[in-house]
Amino acid sequence: MTLFITFEGPEGSGKSTVMQAVAERLTVPLIRTREPGGIRISEAIRELLLADDSDMDPRTEALLFAASRRQHLVEKVLPALAAGKLVLCDRFIDSSLAYQGYARGIGTEEILAINQFAVETHMPDLTLYLKVAPEVGLSRISQNDRTTNRLDKESLAFHQRVCEGYDLLAAQYDRIVTLDASQPIEQVIESAYQVILNRLS
Amino acid sequence: MTLFITFEGPEGSGKSTVMQAVAERLTVPLIRTREPGGIRISEAIRELLLADDSDMDPRTEALLFAASRRQHLVEKVLPALAAGKLVLCDRFIDSSLAYQGYARGIGTEEILAINQFAVETHMPDLTLYLKVAPEVGLSRISQNDRTTNRLDKESLAFHQRVCEGYDLLAAQYDRIVTLDASQPIEQVIESAYQVILNRLS
Repeated sequence: MTLFITFEGPEGSGKSTVMQAVAERLTVPLIRTREPGGIRISEAIRELLLADDSDMDPRTEALLFAASRRQHLVEKVLPALAAGKLVLCDRFIDSSLAYQGYARGIGTEEILAINQFAVETHMPDLTLYLKVAPEVGLSRISQNDRTTNRLDKESLAFHQRVCEGYDLLAAQYDRIVTLDASQPIEQVIESAYQVILNRLS
Repeated sequence: MTLFITFEGPEGSGKSTVMQAVAERLTVPLIRTREPGGIRISEAIRELLLADDSDMDPRTEALLFAASRRQHLVEKVLPALAAGKLVLCDRFIDSSLAYQGYARGIGTEEILAINQFAVETHMPDLTLYLKVAPEVGLSRISQNDRTTNRLDKESLAFHQRVCEGYDLLAAQYDRIVTLDASQPIEQVIESAYQVILNRLS
């Protein structure tokens, strides 16, 4: 059984760490990926997005994310699924809905429209939402001394809206399973692993 | 009275020549532009689009055109309109509908959805469609020894579908005025000039 599984949550929720640990435990054929995922066209789009462009319109940004998503989906996700592999993807459509749609205030329905154009019928089978309070997530980032980018620098108020957006999505879509990511990371990993194992059996 | 006027038509219909000649005759404050129009972000997107990318998915392409359109609209078209200028734009939303929506077969409704996200309420007030048979347009291009790009190299069948797409749009939208662009260029210029003058008075 092939599954397309996405990991979602605000900055500092531990998505990448949890996804990597889960991938190492699973014994089925799988790929781990995230946009742009080494796809040439998507990498070029990412360069545009991460440049410090205060002049980039929010709708331009949203369309570029959707374009990058489309190419990554077609070149990387769909071939892996077709080859019978499990796909673990760090961020996907819900990130655009929470960040651009809800937090930036463009509107989740409008963001959904352009993303449905991008993904067509290829929605995730399962989405793990790593829920954590925005203050906790942001403090984890600053402690890790991660290279910050334009999105990391947004205000706490913005991150609070992102979390609200994710909460609304989790209430709306059955495919989204919420995990308490304020727990110690080993426990979050264990929960994520069990949810996936359960779905695979 | 400010007006947003777009020029549309297949390759070799004479859009650029007609637009330039009309702009020189008009005595009102105006700007002439075309996407990406010197807008840094849109220029970067255009580089991606015009590279010889046989691996670019048609939906990725359509989203990139919409992103470029959005940024050009926000940075160049809207400020000119706000300053009370007439805006003459070489290609706009109808190009995406005719090329990606109709000729590439993605569907005009789906292409309209992502482009409405990009332009919101800012549709052209008037669109001049320079109608010419695809064989005539293509032969003009080859005679001019123009630098060909990826789109110019498409087959005659594709250009026929583009023309069919424009014809359908012209039948659908009142804002589109069809001009016979198989006439001598001086006559096309005169017709375009009269339509605009009439709209301005």
